[in-house]
Amino acid sequence: MTDLLGLTAELVDIPSVSGEERVLADHLERRLRAVPGLEVVRHLDNVVARTRLGRPRRLIVAGHTDTVPVNGNGRARIEGDTLHGLGSSDMKAGVAVALALAEAVAEPAVDVTYVLYAGEEIEALANGLGHLFRDRPDLLAGDAAVVGEPTDGVVEAGCQGTLRLAVTMAGARAHTARPWMGVNAIHRLGELLRVVAAHEPRRPVLDGCEFREALQAVAVDGGVAGNVVPDEATVSLNHRFAPDRTPAEAEAALRDLLAPVLGEGDDVLLVDSAPGAPPGLDHPLLAALVERSGAPVRAKLGWTDVARFAAHGIPACNFGPGDPTLAHTREERVERTPIEAVYAGMAGLLTDGA
Amino acid sequence: MTDLLGLTAELVDIPSVSGEERVLADHLERRLRAVPGLEVVRHLDNVVARTRLGRPRRLIVAGHTDTVPVNGNGRARIEGDTLHGLGSSDMKAGVAVALALAEAVAEPAVDVTYVLYAGEEIEALANGLGHLFRDRPDLLAGDAAVVGEPTDGVVEAGCQGTLRLAVTMAGARAHTARPWMGVNAIHRLGELLRVVAAHEPRRPVLDGCEFREALQAVAVDGGVAGNVVPDEATVSLNHRFAPDRTPAEAEAALRDLLAPVLGEGDDVLLVDSAPGAPPGLDHPLLAALVERSGAPVRAKLGWTDVARFAAHGIPACNFGPGDPTLAHTREERVERTPIEAVYAGMAGLLTDGA
Repeated sequence: MTDLLGLTAELVDIPSVSGEERVLADHLERRLRAVPGLEVVRHLDNVVARTRLGRPRRLIVAGHTDTVPVNGNGRARIEGDTLHGLGSSDMKAGVAVALALAEAVAEPAVDVTYVLYAGEEIEALANGLGHLFRDRPDLLAGDAAVVGEPTDGVVEAGCQGTLRLAVTMAGARAHTARPWMGVNAIHRLGELLRVVAAHEPRRPVLDGCEFREALQAVAVDGGVAGNVVPDEATVSLNHRFAPDRTPAEAEAALRDLLAPVLGEGDDVLLVDSAPGAPPGLDHPLLAALVERSGAPVRAKLGWTDVARFAAHGIPACNFGPGDPTLAHTREERVERTPIEAVYAGMAGLLTDGA
Repeated sequence: MTDLLGLTAELVDIPSVSGEERVLADHLERRLRAVPGLEVVRHLDNVVARTRLGRPRRLIVAGHTDTVPVNGNGRARIEGDTLHGLGSSDMKAGVAVALALAEAVAEPAVDVTYVLYAGEEIEALANGLGHLFRDRPDLLAGDAAVVGEPTDGVVEAGCQGTLRLAVTMAGARAHTARPWMGVNAIHRLGELLRVVAAHEPRRPVLDGCEFREALQAVAVDGGVAGNVVPDEATVSLNHRFAPDRTPAEAEAALRDLLAPVLGEGDDVLLVDSAPGAPPGLDHPLLAALVERSGAPVRAKLGWTDVARFAAHGIPACNFGPGDPTLAHTREERVERTPIEAVYAGMAGLLTDGA
């Protein structure tokens, strides 16, 4: 069996900060082209490799190749069974698993499409999976998808949607020595923040996964001068919502929540939104993966690229080695055992099918 | 009797935006030097003229010569008995009254010191009265002072103090998809704003004047990123407090008010403060002025230069023509009748004494 920790270290030592994935993409393309029976297509810095065995089902195994910027941890360092280094957990261990599967599982029971893509860690417009769906949707045809983001080896199903609202409260200026002549917009913001902080988000259970919603103020701004009752103050809210709601439904519920503290002259602006993804565990391939993982399935609370698959009708989940809370930190690291466990779960799924 | 509206128009037509008072100071100095019996001293762009009659009491009559920036209203325009133009009310009408008194009341019952000073409308460090107290306190010796700021011809006694606090609330960062891992500093700010908005300020009555205190949030700021639970948020508070409290006492009371919603890691910083001034109506000269004004005395709620006199042990009040709410607006104007009424009140006080 491949030394998966060593393979991950090899990938960590090929720098691939977002926007600079070319060398790593070249490397992966070269290795995949050397595998007999795989059709390999390069699109920009994204590499797609797939079997053409005519199986009744096709599974997509996807992972991003880019990392956040270097933070004093750009070189791989192995200590015993622990690999330290940028991208070790998020998500070169997941890419290593995909590469090893492609090289080792020659006769899978399902057709497999490996998608190793660039630009996940930065703005949505740079996302390689987005570029493939836009330019080469044929390459992403499939029945289900597994994204190898770090999940501690647990299947994280679906993902929550996200939206941001900017709420601007109005007031009327006055001198602070005579505030009763005006209306303080920042004081009014206090009411709004009270409603937001007191809100008990929903916790719907879908396919056995509890999606715990969240509503958080993420920015606040207001003020005219040190002696002026301010006539405007703005708070930005980020709402994470379960995939049983569309962005429009979630926005409407949020506007209903805020309505009692809003008045004439106030403004609520939708800044951006992205839909969630349902767990999709009724798909036999994903249900089989949950069983093989040996752990109870969890809802994915953050937004991930599984939502892109779901938006194209492909049920998807996250399943990868590594502690997600260490992602994007200087202390990022990954252990040998969970990489091997994830590999074993995936290899079993590919070999035996659902 | 002098045409006081015309004299005010003449002064309006000599531009004197803060920092550019020299030409107006030259003009006033020249006219005051022409008055027999007045000792005139020029210090920077401040002009002090005083009688030396050996009276048992000395009254200071003070006014600032500068204006806020031009706002399409730089030229005097008289329509009937109304003078329109920058500084007409704030406070060239008051300066005109002082100049006319100096020129007309040759044998006052009290010694009089006229103080026409620069730099009142901008930062405290530029204040000409401050420069005189610092460099020539001998010129400001006196028993009581009247500052001719616009008060609608009502004596406004004393003034409130002012202080600003910056309150920074701490939190702990987390991903907004898992906010229970952190503490939202902006949500905590909501509690603070609730306390501030719900606070019922004191309304102490001093010398018959009700001082209505105020507590207002004047700025708010916080946020890390659109998907991060923020670990810091700051609100700036402006507190106007009655002159029965020192700045330290007012600050302590404010800290007591906020204490229940503050915790470890939070920070309360005193940004600046200025003491108020008691009404000082037990002084016979000020009591006599209230009587001559023919109107009930009012507390001054804003901070004015009467506080500088009070800080040097000189009871002081505001008394001048013009609507203070028109000050600093494009619509600034003043009527003939109130200028003449204020002049009559002051002339009576100087002629008859207390």
